[in-house]
Amino acid sequence: MFQDFDAPAGGADTAANVKALRAAMAARGMDAFLVPRADEHQGEYVPPSAERLKWLTGFSGSAGIAAVTKRAACLFVDGRYTLQAPFQVDTSIFTIRQTPEQKVSDWLIEQLPAGATVGFDPWLHTAAEIERLGTAVKKRDLKLKPAGSSPLDRAWGKARPPVPKRSVIVHPLKLAGVAADQKLSDLQKLLKDEEQDAVVLTLPDSICWLLNIRGSDVAHNPVTLAFAIVPVKGKVELFIDAAKVGPEAATHLASVARLLAPKELTARLKSLRNAKRKVRVDQETAAFAITRALGRSCLSVGRDPCVAAKARKNVAEIKGARAAHIRDGAAMVRYLAWLDANAASGRVDEIEAVRQLETFRRASNLLRDISFDTISGSGPNGAIVHYRVTQASNRQLGSGELFLIDSGAQYADGTTDVTRTVAIGQPSLEMRQRYTAVLKGHIAISTARFPAGSRGIDLDPFARHALWQMGLDYDHGTGHGVGSYLSVHEGPAGISKRAMVALEPSMILSNEPGYYKTGAYGIRIENLVLVEPGRVPAGGERSMLSFETLTLVPYDRRLIVLDMLSPAERAWIDAYHARVAAEIGPRIDDAPTRAWLKAATASL
Amino acid sequence: MFQDFDAPAGGADTAANVKALRAAMAARGMDAFLVPRADEHQGEYVPPSAERLKWLTGFSGSAGIAAVTKRAACLFVDGRYTLQAPFQVDTSIFTIRQTPEQKVSDWLIEQLPAGATVGFDPWLHTAAEIERLGTAVKKRDLKLKPAGSSPLDRAWGKARPPVPKRSVIVHPLKLAGVAADQKLSDLQKLLKDEEQDAVVLTLPDSICWLLNIRGSDVAHNPVTLAFAIVPVKGKVELFIDAAKVGPEAATHLASVARLLAPKELTARLKSLRNAKRKVRVDQETAAFAITRALGRSCLSVGRDPCVAAKARKNVAEIKGARAAHIRDGAAMVRYLAWLDANAASGRVDEIEAVRQLETFRRASNLLRDISFDTISGSGPNGAIVHYRVTQASNRQLGSGELFLIDSGAQYADGTTDVTRTVAIGQPSLEMRQRYTAVLKGHIAISTARFPAGSRGIDLDPFARHALWQMGLDYDHGTGHGVGSYLSVHEGPAGISKRAMVALEPSMILSNEPGYYKTGAYGIRIENLVLVEPGRVPAGGERSMLSFETLTLVPYDRRLIVLDMLSPAERAWIDAYHARVAAEIGPRIDDAPTRAWLKAATASL
Repeated sequence: MFQDFDAPAGGADTAANVKALRAAMAARGMDAFLVPRADEHQGEYVPPSAERLKWLTGFSGSAGIAAVTKRAACLFVDGRYTLQAPFQVDTSIFTIRQTPEQKVSDWLIEQLPAGATVGFDPWLHTAAEIERLGTAVKKRDLKLKPAGSSPLDRAWGKARPPVPKRSVIVHPLKLAGVAADQKLSDLQKLLKDEEQDAVVLTLPDSICWLLNIRGSDVAHNPVTLAFAIVPVKGKVELFIDAAKVGPEAATHLASVARLLAPKELTARLKSLRNAKRKVRVDQETAAFAITRALGRSCLSVGRDPCVAAKARKNVAEIKGARAAHIRDGAAMVRYLAWLDANAASGRVDEIEAVRQLETFRRASNLLRDISFDTISGSGPNGAIVHYRVTQASNRQLGSGELFLIDSGAQYADGTTDVTRTVAIGQPSLEMRQRYTAVLKGHIAISTARFPAGSRGIDLDPFARHALWQMGLDYDHGTGHGVGSYLSVHEGPAGISKRAMVALEPSMILSNEPGYYKTGAYGIRIENLVLVEPGRVPAGGERSMLSFETLTLVPYDRRLIVLDMLSPAERAWIDAYHARVAAEIGPRIDDAPTRAWLKAATASL
Repeated sequence: MFQDFDAPAGGADTAANVKALRAAMAARGMDAFLVPRADEHQGEYVPPSAERLKWLTGFSGSAGIAAVTKRAACLFVDGRYTLQAPFQVDTSIFTIRQTPEQKVSDWLIEQLPAGATVGFDPWLHTAAEIERLGTAVKKRDLKLKPAGSSPLDRAWGKARPPVPKRSVIVHPLKLAGVAADQKLSDLQKLLKDEEQDAVVLTLPDSICWLLNIRGSDVAHNPVTLAFAIVPVKGKVELFIDAAKVGPEAATHLASVARLLAPKELTARLKSLRNAKRKVRVDQETAAFAITRALGRSCLSVGRDPCVAAKARKNVAEIKGARAAHIRDGAAMVRYLAWLDANAASGRVDEIEAVRQLETFRRASNLLRDISFDTISGSGPNGAIVHYRVTQASNRQLGSGELFLIDSGAQYADGTTDVTRTVAIGQPSLEMRQRYTAVLKGHIAISTARFPAGSRGIDLDPFARHALWQMGLDYDHGTGHGVGSYLSVHEGPAGISKRAMVALEPSMILSNEPGYYKTGAYGIRIENLVLVEPGRVPAGGERSMLSFETLTLVPYDRRLIVLDMLSPAERAWIDAYHARVAAEIGPRIDDAPTRAWLKAATASL
């Protein structure tokens, strides 16, 4: 499971691949074709067999879409990837545009004559996406046309890697907390209350959560790729390759699900349509092919009901999360002690830093996977928010620099995600001041108390206040939901300028403000936090919520400017470090690391 | 212009009025009829001739809607008015429901058989409102039907007060800052850029701002009621009663507008439709009658373009606002000194408190009107957020109580809005702690620095943080936009949990966090602030904004718990008080008030 450090491929075959795509488009009478990063399940990670955008363009980011006409081609990426894309993509073939400022629809309107046909793969775009795009290109009278067979898949042909068929594993009740039949009956009650006959599930983590199964079809997300139809009564219809379901999984699933081949899905949807059933579909996540098969008349638009239920962790999941964070904290402590002993000498590079961290995590013998590709950025690389080290970009951790390491683990009892920024040698005063401003924002979230019903957008400003006062800011959200041995990025709640979903008790979120100085250094400090009913102080009147911090890893005290902290902030850090010492200390055996931990967690 | 302190009328004739309405409905074949508070211009204040809801129900609040069927009747009000409404309304005739939790559409569906007809006056509802309502009642197959002639106006008959015909006055260029022909040409450039042939203006303050005119058709809002069509080229068509336009106003308007009778509006809209013009209309504020007259094909949906332009005050308006706030601050200082000298004796009641404040404001000889009905709440009345004192509710300012006074003035050079909470006699520690928490929120907004592009929603949490930490909160927004000798509540920006519009330099907003203990006391502290390009501190990287506080009135130091303030907060109050002393002091002649001001503005 070691991370792959090869420079992202691409470039080499772009010309040939685009040519092959255009030939297949022409055979289908298409004037343009859209190639998104998304697969049929709209996940953040996709299997190699679904890396269509990377095959075509060389671009390896986690989001993007290409549009190709007979003569022109354009790759659309968001602000995270505008620096990376030109290095990976042959810009003599693809122009690169930044979303959401620049729109696919506008480019299509520029490039195509009125009445032209824009093809798309109906399994790779959500219904909502196609509706928005269709409305936007209507003024030029462009026609969106779902491809019967994808010209890209045709062009890719035999070179395309096989679809993954990794085994389904059972997620034990002790860790899942609630049995699959109970989750199913809760879900069916909800469908009944909303007068729906069934719901179509397309998100693999929703299906895995509901049925208490896991898999390894995609990197770092312990899911199995499948679709499901959940009827208001009776068993789930699980559309999954039978080869993935061994005897143990089959036995586990037998009481709650009927297994069908993935290719039967469309026929089943059509039969629901013919039976005039009312079928719930989440148009923001379900493929256009699904809503098309159901037709307007039996479609009942509503969010995937597993998303909200899954976000509220149950008692077993919370217990697991706490255990996973103590285990992960011990690995991080060993790692940071190792880093302090070795990095200042200039003998550690970014790749070595990733490998060593993974080694410490593997030593628990409980690591199932890392939860995402580790971000290991020293000096200027730390300022690239979604940096992923490659052999080409790899650099030594140099003295006088900051090193940012953002990583996480998948354990069976919980998913972790932690970022620490570490001084290598002597940091500058500016680095320390800005680190402290980020830390103040991080503490403001940790200590926030807020009325029930508050949304992430109501907390996000607290994370930025100290930076704003200095004329600084960061261009990413402050927090995302985290799954329980599932996706490290999980909906529906978050903490950001767009997070309109109310935070509820037992949700797990990240708390990760940052600051990035382009070409110089990056700072990010991240813990996971658990939403808990807030202790209402004496005289308090409202039902309040607050956060319990789950992550247990010391902050780098060398980077803290004490004068910038209020007494309350200083007391919070001391109490947190005391907790780290108490929880992690007993799990550290070797004397040097014990000594390191003691020093790292002493009162400021 | 003294405020009216009679208990709101109503109740007495409700039975007869509802009966008359039902007879007129029956004659028009309507099964139900809707009676909103709004007039044709959707303003917060309406003239007596448009007080339809009050005539029918007795309810005098600033927002609400009644629905009447042959047998049932229901009044819908929001949370501000759920306590007040039952006192004003005959609840044996009207049931009362709270919006937005309870919906008009649901009530109609409950009460009416499928296929029933729901009548409405097409001039009193926005196009967007009718569209939403129509969608909601469609499932029961109810038909929304615009009334050719209003059954309510028929029932009201001769008892209805005449439509106001107060004179239009010219707003001098020295105060308006930009000439009407310049504003018109800027607006026409915008229409040209957006390829629109015209825009329909229905908001009186937009029209008054554009043409540099004012009026007095409604209380406290210095506007004249009119409609306008602004073509992309040529003069504005101003639909206004000619009797309101005297020679001076006629001369002023001649270069930018052509005057037409209000009854010609519909015909002009239809002629634009016949000429297939593209006409911009703001569906959230324009009456359904307007979009209906234009028809779908020539409608170009877009916000009223004056709203955003008017919110950014020009140099003359800012200069005027500063002068108005010094003048108003001097009146407030005289008032607060008077209050301190007289209230503790128990000889001042809430009505006397309002009259005295208005007397101090009138002494400037520049007061045009108050900017809204003063909220003068002592003890438990202070906890009623939108309290308006009447002879019936009037009470003495009692010792050991808090007194909340929220008031404002309309001067030709600016509109003010200020709230102070004052201790009468000895306040309790709890009162002082909660006052200080509110004050901390108020200071947090005053001192906020935030990146350009931030919206009010990004600042609102700062105003609540100290209260949240104590388990407390308040159920209103933190700030609203304020006009320049125009509406005291003005769009598009605000500071609240719903404020999604970016704050821009030169906007004026209120900063008014509060706390309300039902049955006991209310606290609110309000200043007006001006958005200004922020001073970016050394090392700062982003374009930042901040606020200049305009209001100059001391806080009640007896209510401040010093221990709860950070050194920075304390320094801010001292600096603010020093500014009040410097700006207001020279304008105070009498020795007792000078002494009061000196004590009130001394360092904490």
